Amino acid sequence: MAVNYVLPTPTSLRPIAGLRLGYAEANVRKPNRKDMLIAVLDEGSIAAGVFTQNRFCAAPVTVCREHLTKTGNQRAIIVNTGCANAGTGERGLTDARDTCAAVAAALGCKAEEVLPFSTGVIMEHLPMEKILGGIPKCVANLTADGWYDAAHAIMTTDTVPKAVSKQITLYGKTVTITGIAKGAGMIQPNMATMLGFIATDACIAADTLRDMVRNAAEVSFNSITIDGDTSTNDSFVLIATNKADHPPVWGEGTVEYGRLQHAINDVAIALAQAIVRDGEGATKFISINVSGGKTRAECMKVAKAIGHSPLVKTAFFASDPNLGRILAAVGYAGIDDLDQNKLTLHLADVLVAEHGGRAASYREEDGSRVMKEAEIEVNVHLGRGDEKATLWTCDFSYDYVKINADYRS
Amino acid sequence: MAVNYVLPTPTSLRPIAGLRLGYAEANVRKPNRKDMLIAVLDEGSIAAGVFTQNRFCAAPVTVCREHLTKTGNQRAIIVNTGCANAGTGERGLTDARDTCAAVAAALGCKAEEVLPFSTGVIMEHLPMEKILGGIPKCVANLTADGWYDAAHAIMTTDTVPKAVSKQITLYGKTVTITGIAKGAGMIQPNMATMLGFIATDACIAADTLRDMVRNAAEVSFNSITIDGDTSTNDSFVLIATNKADHPPVWGEGTVEYGRLQHAINDVAIALAQAIVRDGEGATKFISINVSGGKTRAECMKVAKAIGHSPLVKTAFFASDPNLGRILAAVGYAGIDDLDQNKLTLHLADVLVAEHGGRAASYREEDGSRVMKEAEIEVNVHLGRGDEKATLWTCDFSYDYVKINADYRS
Repeated sequence: MAVNYVLPTPTSLRPIAGLRLGYAEANVRKPNRKDMLIAVLDEGSIAAGVFTQNRFCAAPVTVCREHLTKTGNQRAIIVNTGCANAGTGERGLTDARDTCAAVAAALGCKAEEVLPFSTGVIMEHLPMEKILGGIPKCVANLTADGWYDAAHAIMTTDTVPKAVSKQITLYGKTVTITGIAKGAGMIQPNMATMLGFIATDACIAADTLRDMVRNAAEVSFNSITIDGDTSTNDSFVLIATNKADHPPVWGEGTVEYGRLQHAINDVAIALAQAIVRDGEGATKFISINVSGGKTRAECMKVAKAIGHSPLVKTAFFASDPNLGRILAAVGYAGIDDLDQNKLTLHLADVLVAEHGGRAASYREEDGSRVMKEAEIEVNVHLGRGDEKATLWTCDFSYDYVKINADYRS
Repeated sequence: MAVNYVLPTPTSLRPIAGLRLGYAEANVRKPNRKDMLIAVLDEGSIAAGVFTQNRFCAAPVTVCREHLTKTGNQRAIIVNTGCANAGTGERGLTDARDTCAAVAAALGCKAEEVLPFSTGVIMEHLPMEKILGGIPKCVANLTADGWYDAAHAIMTTDTVPKAVSKQITLYGKTVTITGIAKGAGMIQPNMATMLGFIATDACIAADTLRDMVRNAAEVSFNSITIDGDTSTNDSFVLIATNKADHPPVWGEGTVEYGRLQHAINDVAIALAQAIVRDGEGATKFISINVSGGKTRAECMKVAKAIGHSPLVKTAFFASDPNLGRILAAVGYAGIDDLDQNKLTLHLADVLVAEHGGRAASYREEDGSRVMKEAEIEVNVHLGRGDEKATLWTCDFSYDYVKINADYRS
């Protein structure tokens, strides 16, 4: 079960003016589960996205990128689970485009105003008959209150739905931000993909929206890791319906930009952390805070070396304060001129290592006490600058192997 | 148990003229096990080594590097298991130097002619009383036939001793190469370390020996991975006792150089593969051959992305031909201009993927058949050049988690 995760309720998820959601049980891979979702946006809505850097990216990712450059207006997104439409060659692209065309026909908009997303098994073709059959079912139950069902409709190996809402006041108007996400590994078995969708009724300039989605991704979905595998389908889209009737937010310098970005980041971080809490086989939620670096990038490099190490992650699973493993990971993170004597390692508030070795004050029972918690902070100070980065991850348990070894059978 | 591994026997390991080995049960961490080794080299012996790139490198690695630059002659190596002497600050360096001084005093040589190696728990200090007590015990049983016991004396979580001998003729003289290694993870629990020692009685120029150890490391120990963790203590040392009474081998161009390098590579590869076959929890031995790259480095990058992926490795454990996971790993390996349509993936001789997707001829039962074998070849052709690289790895099983979660307790 997800670590320290508070389940969303239908009423905790606030509708976004100008956006309706509908789901279907389309039997894409398994019967009797919500496996398709359409979100329909009023005219005047815009979207911006960040996508997987995987060179074997899925067909829908390619089509999303095309559509986002072709038009400034978005009218719909369509999501299916069960099949990732990745590693599917030319036919995969045709299937993704046909899906968009069918949604456009049903809604009376252009195909390039539809963004497609898929998550599921790699190297299998979309079952187009089922997808096309699901579209009218989704359209038939469109509702502004559809977020709770929508969060369920995009789940694959997730054990809990991930969704959160937040409201702030901007220019005296209440602005709402609601988001959903899925994913229980950076890539899941074959059920490839992290997907995240956040929508707001705030009024935002198109260029600014693109900055905002990149900034939010950086501190949220790009700051988590389950297993170090990067999906072929990872997608995070930020939608603005521009319904909140306030002056548009634009430019990174303004107070309103800062407040809105911060609120969007909060939602993105909550969703990203939910993915980690629900990580495959996770029993612990771990925050790795690396500070004292010359750049944020080198801090993240160290954090990822720690967060990807199977040895560190199995030690967390075992609640074993086997902390030399963390020092070893810091050492191979790839900072060539790192001085091990300037580094400090704290586990929560317990000083573990300094001056290139174990701290004189460190007692194993203090380390053990922290390691037994369900939420653990690893604090590394590199002693070479003022930059910092945080990565969230989970431990590595028998169940991770079980889930990933058994998944397809 | 090690995958398809033929155990060495005492008689299969040939002595090297000019080299004697002695072990001790010094009780470094656990009683009643061989945990110290000294190899004594006749005058005129030389050595060259390659060491971990980990910035948190262990004290003995630092001292080895110092000693190898201070002198061209080596007279002894000393190895202990049970304590890595890593993450031990200034005192760790003093302990490593004191160990060398004690060996030098016992043998009548200089401290800088002794190379120290440690493997075991990180962030604990060497128990110097036990180490100093073990030295005379090692010296008391020095013998040229000591290789079999030596292979046992450097084991930690290894389930089998790793040792191999090979002979070739050079300038009409028989030349012998014998090596031992230890390691069951690139880094093991806290029992950090891969150690490899290869000795030959061949006559080799000092500069040439340094080239040879780098070349051999590249195609052997640098071409394996268990879990992607790089140890603080990894060391590979090549020793030449120069006793074989033939003209010295020098310069990379000669026929003799080529034949000797090839034979040394064979020994190093056999030892490196033995480490993989004995990988923590391993049930499969996997060769990842990447060809058609622009550089060897990019081929190795792709091979490592595949070989490090927990998802790929759990699929091998499950014998599940879940091959989209391999494509995904190729895609995120970091080749920015990779064209997925030019790539082919074979599992052994079965064509799995081409033209950006599943091959038309691919049948799941063919994939399943290959996945059930204990030795599996993954063949990726990148379709962009003529370079290639091979990486050997193992699968990722419940037992990996069990070994690493339970280790210290």
